[in-house]
Amino acid sequence: MRAVDIVMKKRDGGELSREEIEFLVSGYVSGNIPEYQVSSWLMAVFFKGMTARETGFLTDVMLHSGKTIDLSGIQGPFVDKHSTGGVGDKLSLILAPIVASCGVRVPMMSGRSLGHTGGTLDKLESIPGYTARLTEARFREGILADGFAMTGQTEEIVPADRLLYSLRDVTATVESVPLITASILSKKCAEGAEALVFDVKSGPGAFMKTPEDAERLARSLVDTGRAMGKRIIALITDMTEPLGLTVGNFFEVEETLDCLEGTGPADVMEVTLALSERMLVAAGKAKDAESARSRCLAVLESKEARTRFLANAARQGGDVDRMLALRGNYRAPFHAAVTAPSSSFVTAINAYGIGMASVLLGAGRSKTSDPVFPDVGIIFAKKSGDRVEAGGEVCTLYARDEAALAGAMDLARKAVSFGSEKPDPIKHILKEISAL
Amino acid sequence: MRAVDIVMKKRDGGELSREEIEFLVSGYVSGNIPEYQVSSWLMAVFFKGMTARETGFLTDVMLHSGKTIDLSGIQGPFVDKHSTGGVGDKLSLILAPIVASCGVRVPMMSGRSLGHTGGTLDKLESIPGYTARLTEARFREGILADGFAMTGQTEEIVPADRLLYSLRDVTATVESVPLITASILSKKCAEGAEALVFDVKSGPGAFMKTPEDAERLARSLVDTGRAMGKRIIALITDMTEPLGLTVGNFFEVEETLDCLEGTGPADVMEVTLALSERMLVAAGKAKDAESARSRCLAVLESKEARTRFLANAARQGGDVDRMLALRGNYRAPFHAAVTAPSSSFVTAINAYGIGMASVLLGAGRSKTSDPVFPDVGIIFAKKSGDRVEAGGEVCTLYARDEAALAGAMDLARKAVSFGSEKPDPIKHILKEISAL
Repeated sequence: MRAVDIVMKKRDGGELSREEIEFLVSGYVSGNIPEYQVSSWLMAVFFKGMTARETGFLTDVMLHSGKTIDLSGIQGPFVDKHSTGGVGDKLSLILAPIVASCGVRVPMMSGRSLGHTGGTLDKLESIPGYTARLTEARFREGILADGFAMTGQTEEIVPADRLLYSLRDVTATVESVPLITASILSKKCAEGAEALVFDVKSGPGAFMKTPEDAERLARSLVDTGRAMGKRIIALITDMTEPLGLTVGNFFEVEETLDCLEGTGPADVMEVTLALSERMLVAAGKAKDAESARSRCLAVLESKEARTRFLANAARQGGDVDRMLALRGNYRAPFHAAVTAPSSSFVTAINAYGIGMASVLLGAGRSKTSDPVFPDVGIIFAKKSGDRVEAGGEVCTLYARDEAALAGAMDLARKAVSFGSEKPDPIKHILKEISAL
Repeated sequence: MRAVDIVMKKRDGGELSREEIEFLVSGYVSGNIPEYQVSSWLMAVFFKGMTARETGFLTDVMLHSGKTIDLSGIQGPFVDKHSTGGVGDKLSLILAPIVASCGVRVPMMSGRSLGHTGGTLDKLESIPGYTARLTEARFREGILADGFAMTGQTEEIVPADRLLYSLRDVTATVESVPLITASILSKKCAEGAEALVFDVKSGPGAFMKTPEDAERLARSLVDTGRAMGKRIIALITDMTEPLGLTVGNFFEVEETLDCLEGTGPADVMEVTLALSERMLVAAGKAKDAESARSRCLAVLESKEARTRFLANAARQGGDVDRMLALRGNYRAPFHAAVTAPSSSFVTAINAYGIGMASVLLGAGRSKTSDPVFPDVGIIFAKKSGDRVEAGGEVCTLYARDEAALAGAMDLARKAVSFGSEKPDPIKHILKEISAL
């Protein structure tokens, strides 16, 4: 077998066998196949795509390039949720304790903020003392005790993905649906989940800018996951506007508490419950969405979900008393508000612009080595469709220095639109695609 | 400027600027841009192509990656011919002295056999003592004295092409019209020609298998050459059957002498004269093809072309007396003939099959480091359209050992077809595309 022949076969639109994909990817990981052949193959995949079978082979080969989490000895079902990334997307923090309270185990391996999108681990680690760097033993322990645990990807999990992703990043081959699919699924399969719910975001604040592109990715995730024997549901959800009223690490922890106490914003609750229901259905813990919803509402009502959130925070090193004491007043010193020029409606809040403003504030990262801060970000008083008087506040930005504030204000002002007509309400759940 | 952005721009179908192409290619040659970015760019070019402007920029950047031949102080016009490679294609050996005899200077930089196609330099070096490795001074001297000289590409000429070609070879990006165009044109421009005639072969024995593909390459060469200020004519010629009656290095030198003495095969003469005429027209030495042809016929008739061929052979180290003494009897010891199974017509001789048979005999190479022999090859008694009796000879193969002969006979037998109907004659000149 020769790498160049495999590249040529893909270039000419052929379907690669498991052996061919394994030869190329394992050869790359072991250093026997040079980067220049892998990158030309990646570009050929960009243009010619991969079938669900091929994508499944790639996922499987990547999955077996490293170690997988061993959840044996713990009673399942194990279900995880994965989001393709958005702005103000704190849903994992809320749904993991809800779903765990309903008897589902959630072995959640999450990521960090990069570019305009936030990261679950950064949000959790804004809780004083919290760590998302768990050993496998502590990860198992958390799942056993609280029904869920939150960790980051270690060096040993799917090393092929780290290698391939860094090569894709510098060769303009990131935006390929099968490559994205294999990257996501290989990591999700490595953490031991039997069923997966995907939140594929669509809109200016998402990786997939259009519903059509989001649907292509959702279908690829569902088809490939099914080919790998997983139960999969994907929801396509809107990301034109930030989710909820907060963007910023600790600010989003505060909003998580609001949601778990029944006072969270309607949009966050709508998408959180939609995803939680699907997790229960995928786990076989509810026969349909309706009965799943009533179980989720019950664990919110009884505060069991809130209790589990606090238990996880404490178990992963968080100082829960301090977190609760900081709530509502953990704000960086420099602040300024975006206000309405005249009495009008907020007609749109561009999620990408707000995401980039939050990066300037230090809530997110331009590059992986940048630090992030807990007490910076954006808090909205109004969202699109809300009426605002002349000079009235739409949102307030918090920063650690004047320069960051000025740059972020500039972006935030451009991200907010006003008009005399009340806009149509945003539809949050756009489509469901499943393979159960 | 970042390499990844240039790759992305090409991937998305954009037209690259001169600065972008220079950044990428010069950066690659100097070692600042890694192979994996260049190979993903090459694959993007494979899929998205390049405009004539871009191909011109690439050619120019490649050309200036090394030194160019200095022909200053020699009176032009300088015209060269380039063939995309075929089987039995000894046309350069015949047309260079013809055209030089008509007052055109031919600074000819040629290649060696690779795969099923023959190489001009291997044919010339089958003349005892002949060398195609000339210093620039000896190259100039030959052009000045005989009107033409024959040399190979040196390390210093277009190093970017050697680097890019070896990368394309292992990344399945050889078959790209703009990349082939830039590779050919950069070398031809480096040798100092002001006008160029291209023989773009089409058919099973050619690199371009169909007339459509050949026309795409011919148009790209013409358009890009024009964008670079050169006068260009391309002929698309047939390569379904080997040209002439000989395939093999010294065998083709013998056929060259036949042609220069007026006894050469009709097909070789037809294509040689068609190309020679275009060289005279492109050089401005004849106002039209008709007057160009009568000048070519005159220098053949007067034997001036033959005299110049012998003068060049001697000047480049060849033992002319020995060459003439070997003529007709320089044959490797093992031989066998392909014969007709019944009284019939030869209906086809597959050039690719014959080319591969000649490689097995040692007339050509599978890889660049293989040796080639002067006295092996194939001599045809019949070509397609000829009548042959049962058991009558179609061609004879000459080899240096039994095993090579057996393997080559197997291929040669499969390459020859017989039938009861006389086939239509082959049309040798398929199309002309020019930019004068």
